[in-house]
Amino acid sequence: MMDAFAERTRRCQQRLRTVDADAAVLFPSTNLFYVSGFDEHPGERHLFLFVPVSGDPVFVVPDMYGEQIADESWVSDIRTWSDGDDPLELVGDVADEFDLHRGNLLVDDTMWALFTQDLRSALPEATFGLASEVLEPLRMRKDETEIEALRRAGEVADEVCVEIRELGEDAIGMTERELAQEIESRLSDAGGDEPAFGTIVGSGPNGAKPHHGHGERQIGYGDPVVLDFGAFVDGYPGDQTRTVVFAGTPPEEFDRVHRVVREAQQAGVEAVEPGVTAESVDEATREVIESSGYGEQFIHRTGHGVGLDVHEGPYIVSGNDLQLQSGMVFSIEPGVYIPGEFGVRIEDLVVVTEDGCERLNDSPRTWQGL
Amino acid sequence: MMDAFAERTRRCQQRLRTVDADAAVLFPSTNLFYVSGFDEHPGERHLFLFVPVSGDPVFVVPDMYGEQIADESWVSDIRTWSDGDDPLELVGDVADEFDLHRGNLLVDDTMWALFTQDLRSALPEATFGLASEVLEPLRMRKDETEIEALRRAGEVADEVCVEIRELGEDAIGMTERELAQEIESRLSDAGGDEPAFGTIVGSGPNGAKPHHGHGERQIGYGDPVVLDFGAFVDGYPGDQTRTVVFAGTPPEEFDRVHRVVREAQQAGVEAVEPGVTAESVDEATREVIESSGYGEQFIHRTGHGVGLDVHEGPYIVSGNDLQLQSGMVFSIEPGVYIPGEFGVRIEDLVVVTEDGCERLNDSPRTWQGL
Repeated sequence: MMDAFAERTRRCQQRLRTVDADAAVLFPSTNLFYVSGFDEHPGERHLFLFVPVSGDPVFVVPDMYGEQIADESWVSDIRTWSDGDDPLELVGDVADEFDLHRGNLLVDDTMWALFTQDLRSALPEATFGLASEVLEPLRMRKDETEIEALRRAGEVADEVCVEIRELGEDAIGMTERELAQEIESRLSDAGGDEPAFGTIVGSGPNGAKPHHGHGERQIGYGDPVVLDFGAFVDGYPGDQTRTVVFAGTPPEEFDRVHRVVREAQQAGVEAVEPGVTAESVDEATREVIESSGYGEQFIHRTGHGVGLDVHEGPYIVSGNDLQLQSGMVFSIEPGVYIPGEFGVRIEDLVVVTEDGCERLNDSPRTWQGL
Repeated sequence: MMDAFAERTRRCQQRLRTVDADAAVLFPSTNLFYVSGFDEHPGERHLFLFVPVSGDPVFVVPDMYGEQIADESWVSDIRTWSDGDDPLELVGDVADEFDLHRGNLLVDDTMWALFTQDLRSALPEATFGLASEVLEPLRMRKDETEIEALRRAGEVADEVCVEIRELGEDAIGMTERELAQEIESRLSDAGGDEPAFGTIVGSGPNGAKPHHGHGERQIGYGDPVVLDFGAFVDGYPGDQTRTVVFAGTPPEEFDRVHRVVREAQQAGVEAVEPGVTAESVDEATREVIESSGYGEQFIHRTGHGVGLDVHEGPYIVSGNDLQLQSGMVFSIEPGVYIPGEFGVRIEDLVVVTEDGCERLNDSPRTWQGL
């Protein structure tokens, strides 16, 4: 696996050359993991990986991380600073060696302002762009190992979705929070690592807020419930959504809305093939929903890429004329939200193949009890 | 509670005036929660709160968040953009209204480069600083409600620490990962919300890596094990560390090192009172360890503030001449790390009182079985 990370770094350097940049400057992020193999959350201490356009990459890290990085990363040039030292002195050294003082530096997209401000102070004549310019095109196309992890994450989510739906009437009276805990515990039992994002259980009117997590509302008879969840498997997330009714009769309009969303989702999946644009997939789902009169209630894009980050490129959104290529993985998740009443969203992940796409989720998409 | 958030915003505005800044620009972060009551993780969509030096704050958010923010925040001026729109147009409007085009803007310390780059493009004549300049002094001094939550988080961590140590010989043969899962499950049973950070179970040589999380190593007889964990309670984290031996006889040097670290930790606690500097507490722990000959193996600062963030000011580190004030809460966690063999760290949180400090953790600090 060391070789795979080193190879990614070499491809990053080739792209730096192409876009006329002098270095990428990463900090704890999925970009950093992607090229170095070192996996850490952002923190308040200065921790950078400089990937120069040529030559070997250099870590500048707090000395408490020195041993760990030596174990986990193929990168061998690790320079450490101690609490109380000024880490910007090491940054200055690296800038001297690679001639970066007037360079064009691509900083990690998620780098905190705390650190970009310091880089700007330390290198006042440099110019700054974003590392995604070179890394996003690499990361968007998954290799077979990555796709295999995503497939397994999809299976874990599907399995749990079926189990949860089989609760049927037993789910009535549970709070959203209790159901979310049940989902997360089953994700773990099914072989998932930690949840890929805050599990969404949006019951009744809460389903009309697309980013509602879960609260203390009790699930009642006839409540539509949006279930959006997944777990990581080997570093790659699952992410699927079903909108179901555990027991009882839903509001009158619900079945119609559910059919529209299901149809829209199917239209999105059918629109995917190499060479079409990301926005054309958005158009495909939106057209179904608009022609049914719910266009105003479809208040978000159709989907997002999925990989080391749960949200990454390609974004399936109006205005994105990126051409899809095989190996790209993203969600197709149209939704319709009726404020104060209910929401419906249906989501699968798909991987673009040579002539279409493969769904990574395939549990039943209907709302009726299983 | 709405009033408390509004009051914090007013105090933030007073400080903006003091430092001659025109606005703070926040994005999903604990700073944002602190002033608005809206709690969200960072994401790839533009979501800003502008807090002008005078006048009412303004949210610029994806429209999918509109309803949620109206529910959760006292801030009523919420301007939304849809996927496919350019959110920077709304930023331009706000800059027009509050005359920010040539302003001095304090951006959230954790704001992603992705967004700071866009703010710089949208407002090319503005100057940029960090929001911590106005918010850190406010956030460092906790009010009684915050301290009460931190006390309860401390009790949860203490309770679980005792339970885990009582495993004794039953812990032998468990992997670090299994023990971490056991800890996290008990934190939840004891009334904690999610873990405050990745639970650290560093057994034997893994304990010598201060930021080792947990791995597949099995705990053996005589292994020193660093246990560093905590859970959130009402938004505030627990964070304590004990270094224990579950069964068997530890390496010869271990008991001596453990005594030194315990003494250093005690010296740190005794050094705390209002008016002394943060670095003087670091000196107090370091002096004990240095005079015992382990100075080179104490490779990190003595501690960090704790609040809505698990790591925040005041940092207890050489070079920090900030004067401690009552209501500040931070860790005192000296450690000694013998590479390839073991590590010892002992940590309590303390709150500065009128004449000293109160420990928020008080489970036994010895290494022997309970």
